[in-house]
This record gives sequence, C-alpha cells and structure tokens, in this order.
Amino acid sequence: MGRWEPDSKGRLQEAALALYLEHGFDQTTAAQIADQAGLTERTFFRHFADKREVLFAGSVYLEERIVTAVSAAPESAGALEAVGFGLQAGAAFFGEFRRDLALQRQAVIASNPELRERELAKLADWAIAIAAVLRERGVTEPQATLAAETGMAVLRVGLQRWASDENDQELTDIMRDAMADVRALAAGS
Amino acid sequence: MGRWEPDSKGRLQEAALALYLEHGFDQTTAAQIADQAGLTERTFFRHFADKREVLFAGSVYLEERIVTAVSAAPESAGALEAVGFGLQAGAAFFGEFRRDLALQRQAVIASNPELRERELAKLADWAIAIAAVLRERGVTEPQATLAAETGMAVLRVGLQRWASDENDQELTDIMRDAMADVRALAAGS
Repeated sequence: MGRWEPDSKGRLQEAALALYLEHGFDQTTAAQIADQAGLTERTFFRHFADKREVLFAGSVYLEERIVTAVSAAPESAGALEAVGFGLQAGAAFFGEFRRDLALQRQAVIASNPELRERELAKLADWAIAIAAVLRERGVTEPQATLAAETGMAVLRVGLQRWASDENDQELTDIMRDAMADVRALAAGS
Repeated sequence: MGRWEPDSKGRLQEAALALYLEHGFDQTTAAQIADQAGLTERTFFRHFADKREVLFAGSVYLEERIVTAVSAAPESAGALEAVGFGLQAGAAFFGEFRRDLALQRQAVIASNPELRERELAKLADWAIAIAAVLRERGVTEPQATLAAETGMAVLRVGLQRWASDENDQELTDIMRDAMADVRALAAGS
C-alpha cells in the first residue's frame, strides 16, 4: 500500500457508502463492499461487526467527547452553555472527517427507515448521558433533560447543514451559529 | 354492554397495555389481547392493524392538531412561540387520555428498543411537518427546523413528566412550564 493510499478501514467505508447509495443499504453485502475496496471479506469483519456498523463506527468516541466536554465546562456555565461546550468538542471531532463522506452517510441513513431510527436512538441515548452529567453539575430536572435534548436538536441541524453546506464553513462555526439561533428563538425572535 | 362499560377499543387498549407490561410486547399476541378484553380476535383487527398500532393509534390526529395549531398561531408569534401553540393543542388532545394508561404506554415503549425507535421516528416526522408549516409562516432555515426540534424536545419531556407526575398537574400546564424552562435555559440560566 502506497504511503498516501487510504488505510483499509477508510477504503471499506468509502466503498460501502458508494454501494449503499448506488444499490441501497439492504441490497449490499459485506462481500461486495470488501470486493469494491479491493480487500477480503475477512478484512471487512476485522474492522466492522456488520455492514450497519460502517455507518455508526466512531459514535462511541463522539459521545464520549461530548459528554466529557459537558462535564468539564466551566462551573459558571449554565446548563445549555455547558451543552454548547459538548457540541463544540463533538464538532471538532466530527469535523475531522471528510465532508463528502459525511454527506453520503446522511443520504444513506435518510433513505432507510431502520437506519434513521437507529440514528435517532443514538442521539436519544446521548441526550440521556448528557442529562446525567448535567445533573452531576447540579442542574435539576426537567432542565437537565431539556438542555440535553435541545442540544441534540442543535447537533442534528448543525450536522445536516455542514454536510449539505456548499460554502465550506467549519462545523464548529456552524454548530456555534445553530446554538446562537436557538437562543435567539427562545428569546422570542 | 352496560352504559358505563368502556367501549371495545378502549378495552382492547387497556388489555394490551396490561399484557405488554406483564409478559413483554414481543411475547403478547393479538389473540391474547382480545381474550383478555373478552372480545374476539376479529374485533381486535377491526380496531387495529397490528399489536404495535395499539400503542400508536391516534398519533396521526395528534400530529394534525399540533400542525394545525402552529399554522393558526397569531401572525405576530415568533417561531418557537408558534410551536408553543402547537404543543398546547397537542397537550389538550393528549390530556384527554387516562394518565395511568399513558404511563403504562410509556413504560412499554421504554422497555422495547424497536418501539422506542418507532416513537422517536414519529416525533422526528412531526418536527419535519412543523418546520414546513413554520417556513410557510415565513420562518427561514435553520430557524424553522431548530424551533420544531426544540418543540419536540419540550413535548417529550412534558409527556414524560405528565405520565410520571404524582401531583396531578394538567398536561397543558406541564407543557407550558417546560417551554418556559427552555426559554430560561436559552437565556443562560
């Protein structure tokens, strides 16, 4: 493999996204993905438990980044502000990925009800984890859950905008703007 | 059937929830539900397409109520304020149901990942419908989607509180408080 050749995991992800988009997620097999990437099926399963995992790999790290940053937010930060620190950390992490692949990933998920439900469940789980951290910071309920859920709304909208954005704005900036938009909305504008 | 006897649809819902809670959703059949309600399986399928439908019947009407109320909100209302009108209409509708059954329903859904994903997908669809109505009202993106998604966060938290609430507060009041909480959070508290 040449020095600038993408690693096998990256090649598998790229091949999988292309096949999911072309033939549909349900119609694509792990063997086809491996073949398209010029790798063996065994290599595929060394990187991913199944073909769904290709789309959701890394989400555990993303959740961890977000939750850790919420927890580490300055003591003076309010609940939603603390969540904003989490989203910035998440955006910094997610923003390292290729935008074109993120766009493809979102298109695949949007076209398959089961994948969409999986994605929504993941965000709901993150909200639960974030609310727990907020409670540790002394935020009471329902504020903790409301702040966490509102943050996930900002995250979803921010990721969508980033993936479909044509003017190449950084994800961290988009996320910051989306959070500011929510604050302005709540202020009544 | 006596004058105060619940109707067959209500009896089926009550029987279904009891069985889902006792034996699990996956382990319960339509025949068992009908039997428990003292009705025939045929009667069950006259009211519900399948056993999942018992939990989600009425959600079409609820969505319609919410969307209509957002659309009919005073012109002067901001985006999130308009969503608040929708939530009030939804709360008035949902609040007519028995709170103990709503509590059971939420417990069943929370205990089954597939049902939970279905519930989340439903709320995500509502957010899409609400955002569309907000755009018709002249709200631009991403504000329309952010307001709609934030509203769904308020709805989820409000319904949870209502179902688990012991002091018998009205759902409309709980929803109004939750919306006020979000506004306060966004203001930085």
